[in-house]
Amino acid sequence: MKPKTAKESLTIQTQIVLPNDINTLGNLFGGRLLQWMDIVASISAHRHCKRVVVTASVNNVAFNNAINHSSIVTLEAKVSRAFSTSMEIFIDVWVEDPVTGIKVKCNEAIYTFVAVDQNGSPLPVPQLIPETEEEKFRFDGALRRRQLSLILAGKMKPEDATELKALFSFEK
Amino acid sequence: MKPKTAKESLTIQTQIVLPNDINTLGNLFGGRLLQWMDIVASISAHRHCKRVVVTASVNNVAFNNAINHSSIVTLEAKVSRAFSTSMEIFIDVWVEDPVTGIKVKCNEAIYTFVAVDQNGSPLPVPQLIPETEEEKFRFDGALRRRQLSLILAGKMKPEDATELKALFSFEK
Amino acid sequence: MKPKTAKESLTIQTQIVLPNDINTLGNLFGGRLLQWMDIVASISAHRHCKRVVVTASVNNVAFNNAINHSSIVTLEAKVSRAFSTSMEIFIDVWVEDPVTGIKVKCNEAIYTFVAVDQNGSPLPVPQLIPETEEEKFRFDGALRRRQLSLILAGKMKPEDATELKALFSFEK
Amino acid sequence: MKPKTAKESLTIQTQIVLPNDINTLGNLFGGRLLQWMDIVASISAHRHCKRVVVTASVNNVAFNNAINHSSIVTLEAKVSRAFSTSMEIFIDVWVEDPVTGIKVKCNEAIYTFVAVDQNGSPLPVPQLIPETEEEKFRFDGALRRRQLSLILAGKMKPEDATELKALFSFEK
Amino acid sequence: MKPKTAKESLTIQTQIVLPNDINTLGNLFGGRLLQWMDIVASISAHRHCKRVVVTASVNNVAFNNAINHSSIVTLEAKVSRAFSTSMEIFIDVWVEDPVTGIKVKCNEAIYTFVAVDQNGSPLPVPQLIPETEEEKFRFDGALRRRQLSLILAGKMKPEDATELKALFSFEK
Amino acid sequence: MKPKTAKESLTIQTQIVLPNDINTLGNLFGGRLLQWMDIVASISAHRHCKRVVVTASVNNVAFNNAINHSSIVTLEAKVSRAFSTSMEIFIDVWVEDPVTGIKVKCNEAIYTFVAVDQNGSPLPVPQLIPETEEEKFRFDGALRRRQLSLILAGKMKPEDATELKALFSFEK
Repeated sequence: MKPKTAKESLTIQTQIVLPNDINTLGNLFGGRLLQWMDIVASISAHRHCKRVVVTASVNNVAFNNAINHSSIVTLEAKVSRAFSTSMEIFIDVWVEDPVTGIKVKCNEAIYTFVAVDQNGSPLPVPQLIPETEEEKFRFDGALRRRQLSLILAGKMKPEDATELKALFSFEK
Repeated sequence: MKPKTAKESLTIQTQIVLPNDINTLGNLFGGRLLQWMDIVASISAHRHCKRVVVTASVNNVAFNNAINHSSIVTLEAKVSRAFSTSMEIFIDVWVEDPVTGIKVKCNEAIYTFVAVDQNGSPLPVPQLIPETEEEKFRFDGALRRRQLSLILAGKMKPEDATELKALFSFEK
Repeated sequence: MKPKTAKESLTIQTQIVLPNDINTLGNLFGGRLLQWMDIVASISAHRHCKRVVVTASVNNVAFNNAINHSSIVTLEAKVSRAFSTSMEIFIDVWVEDPVTGIKVKCNEAIYTFVAVDQNGSPLPVPQLIPETEEEKFRFDGALRRRQLSLILAGKMKPEDATELKALFSFEK
Repeated sequence: MKPKTAKESLTIQTQIVLPNDINTLGNLFGGRLLQWMDIVASISAHRHCKRVVVTASVNNVAFNNAINHSSIVTLEAKVSRAFSTSMEIFIDVWVEDPVTGIKVKCNEAIYTFVAVDQNGSPLPVPQLIPETEEEKFRFDGALRRRQLSLILAGKMKPEDATELKALFSFEK
Repeated sequence: MKPKTAKESLTIQTQIVLPNDINTLGNLFGGRLLQWMDIVASISAHRHCKRVVVTASVNNVAFNNAINHSSIVTLEAKVSRAFSTSMEIFIDVWVEDPVTGIKVKCNEAIYTFVAVDQNGSPLPVPQLIPETEEEKFRFDGALRRRQLSLILAGKMKPEDATELKALFSFEK
Repeated sequence: MKPKTAKESLTIQTQIVLPNDINTLGNLFGGRLLQWMDIVASISAHRHCKRVVVTASVNNVAFNNAINHSSIVTLEAKVSRAFSTSMEIFIDVWVEDPVTGIKVKCNEAIYTFVAVDQNGSPLPVPQLIPETEEEKFRFDGALRRRQLSLILAGKMKPEDATELKALFSFEK
């Protein structure tokens, strides 16, 4: 399979925060944003591998900033690294100032998708070639996050997580 | 503030998987489940602290098993540990066999919520008292997950993460 | 078929009242609550008979108390009595005080479901064994409600409704 | 207040049954129809009294016929009788044959609405003048249904329900 | 095929504007109204030809008046003219005064639908017989709008648009 | 007000066609696409003028190609021309081949939005500078479409529509 660049999987979705999307404080509620992110991330994963994809895990989502009612929200998803049958996707969420139009990043999320055939069995996916500085940074971190994920799921022993060990080998 | 048991925050939501909840393989799509989990988790967090709560982060969600169309899905959320202003919530997702009625666990998720006042500023929350074996196990792991989360967000140095260091201090 | 207890069909759904669920007075509108009740009642009926079930009738729903925006609402459904192919379901609706957490009952509804095969033909269902005082009280009333229902539908003559006659045989 | 005819409150809503409206048998599921009926009935009640109205009770709904996916469904609601502050509404549900266009009645429902002021306190409503045979028949039955409803709610003694007593005074 | 009157395709849908239907000014947002109009227009087209129909084009929709939250909105659709395989539909949108009940027309839209078989191939439809003054006026204009549409789509030369030429032949 | 380029208002929304978005033929139904187009067009108009905007009219939408269930649909909206208080927006709709990823254009729509203040009164908007060939072509056509729209609404006499007259002045 021919490797692909991250740019080829870029998926954009711009939304307005409507009344049914808000919580009791008048801000976009978390569950709605998680749903939007899942959709753009799944399209991004599909664009990378041209296969049916399913959500394997949500690795991390930080809701750093409240998003107000009627905000214009832009979600951008890109594959950050491909493993044998899975893809890690980064989703960046931006809100734009209604007067200046300046976009401020307010959330970042990491999802993992798996390519599957009609029976739901995993299929191989192309490798990812990172190009920009940010793409390379995220590509490097992906292996660490994957080992962490495997340890948390009890599928890898901590001593085999070479990438993570480096992170925690402080003193010696 | 009087500490509370995990049981006091137990929140249950039973759902049927309807046509609009499914992906192209005919299974519940990830984004819908994430939204349902956010709602039960936020009610659970509210029940613990009796305050308005907002989603702070989704720490981990593993979609281990596909959930078919028309399945009966039960979500159960409980606070696993409380920190000064935040609460970690575990959500267990069960699917029941349509003939035997036996429930099988098919997903597990960890969310973090923060209690806020009307301006969105954090408020203190009661401590959590774990009672069952599982509650104690999750309570113990919560600190480790929190340190990990702070490191990943660049808010804690690896060498200060005492709980995590233990996990990775293999050889000596 | 082995008879079942009411407890075995208990189905719980906790919800938050969101902006799209409210009427022009800012309260949960009736149609939404009716929809939620239909879903929990159908799951409860299914749990009793392990068959596909369809709504046969809504016998009575009283909206005694308005439910405010952002309330936490808990619906609890249980089979109250089983007839040959149909099941009467009681749905109790509770709202909890956001500060004390005390649940107040604010609605009660009675639905009837029928178990059907793939062609929509009725199938026999197990009998119900009431256990608690409330379950026995509702079990006893179910026959009366069923006779009433049959009379209103013109499928039973008033003089054959032995249970109802007792209710209205005042003087003698 | 000037009395009004039933015709003045006639409210029509035609819908198509879409994928998200169907149950696992491929038919319109009960909860969706209950929601549609609540909306047309509330508009009908509003047209009669020109006040904000809230659902007081669902008195009876019989789901006699399954409604298939992609059916064209027409709901027609009219006030059947007005009491001091409440209105009984009949909703007739018709499905039309896709080839001949012939409408067949498949459901009938009775809802009660109350007119309220901004605090939710009941307000008086105009009387209803039935004109057609059907309107007169439903008008007459409304008092009986109301007495029944009051008895079931424990707000009227059976011996005071003069209309109902007549129905059950068989022998003498 | 037997020609039909416009009246035979009349389709009515009454709706209340709920919180999720409004924009940031508190008025019904355009996209929601467009969706409602598409549904009533498609039912109207179906009633004329008794075939599966698909939207071919939206020819013109003018949003002349803002529609407030909680307004009662009535949509009325009728076929205005039938061509060989397509039908032009007029949709009139009315809002009623909450106190007087007087309906004021606030929008008008023109959609075109095509009758199709199971492969999506066009099928012939019956002709339309206009009866009222308004129906005749719209029937006459339909040919002009169709020529205009064909010119804009590059499927007709301006000099062949006899109806339109008349409109713009000012001087002679 | 500083004029702006079309590029500055570019708004992208990528969607997957889910079960609730499809008609009885299994294709995206028109009303849903109209709603999506209204949202991206309104964001595009807002980005041009940084004001609250409301839909003024839908000038033309041609549904040339059926869009299948589970297709990936990309909507791209850009301001094509600004008048004193209104903006014409073009929305291009693309569907991508699931295997090759090649995007095919399948719909094109033209909407008009107006910038308004809090009372709904029109506000001036910046002029648009077309840059590409396509932008210039659409910019030129916008005046013609506007005159046509004014004539159809009875707000302009055909003889004053200089742009349109040119189009139909065939022979002389």
